[in-house]
Amino acid sequence: MRQYDILNIRFSGDGSAVEIIDQTLLPGETKSLRLSEADELHEAIVSLRVRGAPAIGIFAAFALYVLARKSTASDHETFLAEVARHSSFLNSARPTAVIPSKQLRRMEELAASLSGSPIPLVLNAMRAEVEQIQREDIEMCRAISEHGLTLIRKGFNIMTYCNAGPLATSRYGTALGPILLAHETGLDLHVYCCETRPLLQGARLTAFELGRAGVDYTLICDNMASIVMKERKIDAVFVGCDRVAINGDAANKIGTSGLAILAKHYGVPFYVCCPSSTIDPGSKSGVSIEIEQRSPREIVELFFSKPVAPAGVNCYNPAFDVTDSSLITAIITEKGIFRAPYKFIIHNS
Amino acid sequence: MRQYDILNIRFSGDGSAVEIIDQTLLPGETKSLRLSEADELHEAIVSLRVRGAPAIGIFAAFALYVLARKSTASDHETFLAEVARHSSFLNSARPTAVIPSKQLRRMEELAASLSGSPIPLVLNAMRAEVEQIQREDIEMCRAISEHGLTLIRKGFNIMTYCNAGPLATSRYGTALGPILLAHETGLDLHVYCCETRPLLQGARLTAFELGRAGVDYTLICDNMASIVMKERKIDAVFVGCDRVAINGDAANKIGTSGLAILAKHYGVPFYVCCPSSTIDPGSKSGVSIEIEQRSPREIVELFFSKPVAPAGVNCYNPAFDVTDSSLITAIITEKGIFRAPYKFIIHNS
Repeated sequence: MRQYDILNIRFSGDGSAVEIIDQTLLPGETKSLRLSEADELHEAIVSLRVRGAPAIGIFAAFALYVLARKSTASDHETFLAEVARHSSFLNSARPTAVIPSKQLRRMEELAASLSGSPIPLVLNAMRAEVEQIQREDIEMCRAISEHGLTLIRKGFNIMTYCNAGPLATSRYGTALGPILLAHETGLDLHVYCCETRPLLQGARLTAFELGRAGVDYTLICDNMASIVMKERKIDAVFVGCDRVAINGDAANKIGTSGLAILAKHYGVPFYVCCPSSTIDPGSKSGVSIEIEQRSPREIVELFFSKPVAPAGVNCYNPAFDVTDSSLITAIITEKGIFRAPYKFIIHNS
Repeated sequence: MRQYDILNIRFSGDGSAVEIIDQTLLPGETKSLRLSEADELHEAIVSLRVRGAPAIGIFAAFALYVLARKSTASDHETFLAEVARHSSFLNSARPTAVIPSKQLRRMEELAASLSGSPIPLVLNAMRAEVEQIQREDIEMCRAISEHGLTLIRKGFNIMTYCNAGPLATSRYGTALGPILLAHETGLDLHVYCCETRPLLQGARLTAFELGRAGVDYTLICDNMASIVMKERKIDAVFVGCDRVAINGDAANKIGTSGLAILAKHYGVPFYVCCPSSTIDPGSKSGVSIEIEQRSPREIVELFFSKPVAPAGVNCYNPAFDVTDSSLITAIITEKGIFRAPYKFIIHNS
């Protein structure tokens, strides 16, 4: 079974809980969690035990069903109010991605549309809808992968960022989908995988997924992307996305915009991969997208189990890089401030 | 006493050892090391217990004296051969910076020039030269700081990278020198300090130095530089340098070139600060500068004592950023590949 044939999000037994792999423990430990309480479902999103916009969307739909199932409401109106409250709570966990709010609204609207039906029948319909959401995600990721594949040639060096693979969706992934498909097709790629500070989703999750799929890859720190683009021919960058504004501005993991500027500088195509539901009619441009602010602890405390990447990972770790003189405004020495064209008087002290 | 009035590198007692603060333990622990054996002096450079091109240069001169002092040679030729062997060993510790090799050569040349003198007199002259090298570094850093100060205005937001402060020199620092001087002059700055993966010199050392000096600062991950330049007005970037080629190409800590590209994109002046001895007549351009490659363990294993930044550090930790549509080549969805100008057909599923 290929790695992306494993569903990351599923019901536990009778649907009383959601089962996920705790992504905060990867790659060191593969541990399943069964979650059924509102607080723990919410915490799983906040703490990135489940992450990636499509995966959060699927998980939120599963979670809403699990919580709705516990309702003791006898009338539809009370039931709907409870569902709305749970939906709002789950949606508050992370604000930037658009898909989770869309999936939750879809579930709420379905429940509301069945106002004449007994609550057990509404719950049955909700469970079917959850499964439909997951099926659609799989089809969507497969279609994204096939579209993306048309942009990849044999021997490509590809750079990717954060994690937009199977773990961020239900299967295949968005940005990693075309890469995995290209590998399966025998296109002989090399992938440069940025670690993605502070939470290291690239090192912990993308490297893990690429390794399991047998893709040749190298892990780099985010600040090495410039030199890798310069020294090694990078043919394309593929990244995922959390929300696309109507004008095409795209919110994604912190650092994506910097990577795009580097790609432009070095003339490397920069591809954003996402379900079309990521395009948000409510956002005219990137300015109106709310950016989630997280705890300083993520930067200051390195709380991952060691090591943070799979065993045997291939790393590139240059200690320095060279900045082209065209990018330097001035060089300040004890002898004064020099600007291009440089006419240094050299002292070999 | 101001923080940068403390010398980081000094002789222990009679000159039989070099005393340094072990920078790998900062900011959690301030521990002095007394080093006198060739292997441990070499290891201190390799392991970054002392780092920063000017500081390594000063340390190498101190170390060469300490090793020369142990010589049992009775003739000058044997003594010089021993000094040359120690010099070559110390110089092999890190290849990219140019100053250490220049300081070592200076010490060797001094010893060679005194071929008629008894070895104790040569050693006295070498010790005086070491002290002269350190005095010159202090004067040089002071002059760099004063030149750099002319580029700073009241209320500036400045970004800096890695550590080019007092700990990377003998006092003041190169890139941090103008900032500390501006602060002292009352220019009311805010400094954004990039953590600098993999070894976090920005978080561990620059944040520590800025905090001790009372400068208002914010720690960010390297991949946040783009969004900080975009959202908060950054007036200038100041970085240090390990080697400048004749054409102005500058080798510095990995990630510097990426920061320079971002600065150019956002129209922010990008200043490189270094002693003029950093300019290497042997390097025609950046292409001929040897870049040190380091262990993958630095990326994969997070082996710093926790926390990696000073207590009470101010961090900025956005989880996402927005990539301007002009930087995106195409958006790949399950419905196909979209390119600008975008005409999305929106589905509110």
